[in-house]
Amino acid sequence: MSTELDFYFEFYSPYGYLASLRIDEIAEKYGRQVNWRPFMLGPTFAITGHQPLLGTPLMGEYSERDLYRSARLQGTELKMPEEFPKVSLNCARAFYALVDDKPNQAKSLAKAIYHATFGLGQDGTQTELIARLADEIGIDGADLMQQTQSQEVKDRLKSETQAAIERGVFGSPYVIVDNEPFWGNDRLDQIDRWLETGGW
Amino acid sequence: MSTELDFYFEFYSPYGYLASLRIDEIAEKYGRQVNWRPFMLGPTFAITGHQPLLGTPLMGEYSERDLYRSARLQGTELKMPEEFPKVSLNCARAFYALVDDKPNQAKSLAKAIYHATFGLGQDGTQTELIARLADEIGIDGADLMQQTQSQEVKDRLKSETQAAIERGVFGSPYVIVDNEPFWGNDRLDQIDRWLETGGW
Repeated sequence: MSTELDFYFEFYSPYGYLASLRIDEIAEKYGRQVNWRPFMLGPTFAITGHQPLLGTPLMGEYSERDLYRSARLQGTELKMPEEFPKVSLNCARAFYALVDDKPNQAKSLAKAIYHATFGLGQDGTQTELIARLADEIGIDGADLMQQTQSQEVKDRLKSETQAAIERGVFGSPYVIVDNEPFWGNDRLDQIDRWLETGGW
Repeated sequence: MSTELDFYFEFYSPYGYLASLRIDEIAEKYGRQVNWRPFMLGPTFAITGHQPLLGTPLMGEYSERDLYRSARLQGTELKMPEEFPKVSLNCARAFYALVDDKPNQAKSLAKAIYHATFGLGQDGTQTELIARLADEIGIDGADLMQQTQSQEVKDRLKSETQAAIERGVFGSPYVIVDNEPFWGNDRLDQIDRWLETGGW
């Protein structure tokens, strides 16, 4: 069994952003690594019958409040992008174009995109922005964005999303620890405890 | 502003049951009382477009696992009734038939129904069972169950459910503390902290 945690997230998920800021640190306390796995949340809605959280009647209003409250609780300043949600294909494809050869830079790019989107409120789906963020971590951004248009990278994201769904992933963030699944930013403390105790 | 916590719950919600075992104790630490408010979850599905959690594809399987894991975490032995979910009209009507004149017994009856349903795995919607549980706390069960068939009690539950929805309630448990809403058993520790600190 792999000792890595699998961290599934959608780039346009603010709760995914909140979790992304803590998951590595929690894992490292127990000598664990985290395997970041972006996926497209959209296809799961066709299965669950749900729609994006903030657009769901009653739940949307509550969730927005809960979201900012959860951010304050963990000391994170959250700034939502003006247009939300947007389709995050560009972000996830850029990640998978990079991850096999340069896994550390792929994670750094994911963090940079998340920070731009929910830390600064920018449109994290824009090609120019992603290219610039890639440049800043020493990756040729123009070349990377060209790769996102290749059939290989497009297919890779599709198969990663399909594989996630087959493992039961239906929301973001979703973390699998030693085959134990945890859904939601509000499960991070439980993940910490699970790693510490080996489960309960 | 009322200092009471409003505890909204559906009688056929296992997460509501888990929360019901802790909410009074949490409130009492801060000298607060809890106003128990059963409502019918069914009508909220027409608004959110959701369906009962355990029956939702992908989410259902996860939620069942999370449910037992959450129960173990708080030291509660959970035993799901064979038939689930069922319509809990009888339970909620019995509560509202009692609550104005005998609020303490109404709460005791709610606890007894919850325990029978999720502690013992019995069919908590059965008239005979509810009547017996009422008898055991000194209420004439046969008389109470007759009252549940009155138009007045039926209307009362309808208006309570409508009022809950108007306050934004869409799930069970749902707790309102000083106008601050908290959805889910997994928010109880946050409620504790909110009461302790006055919010963040």
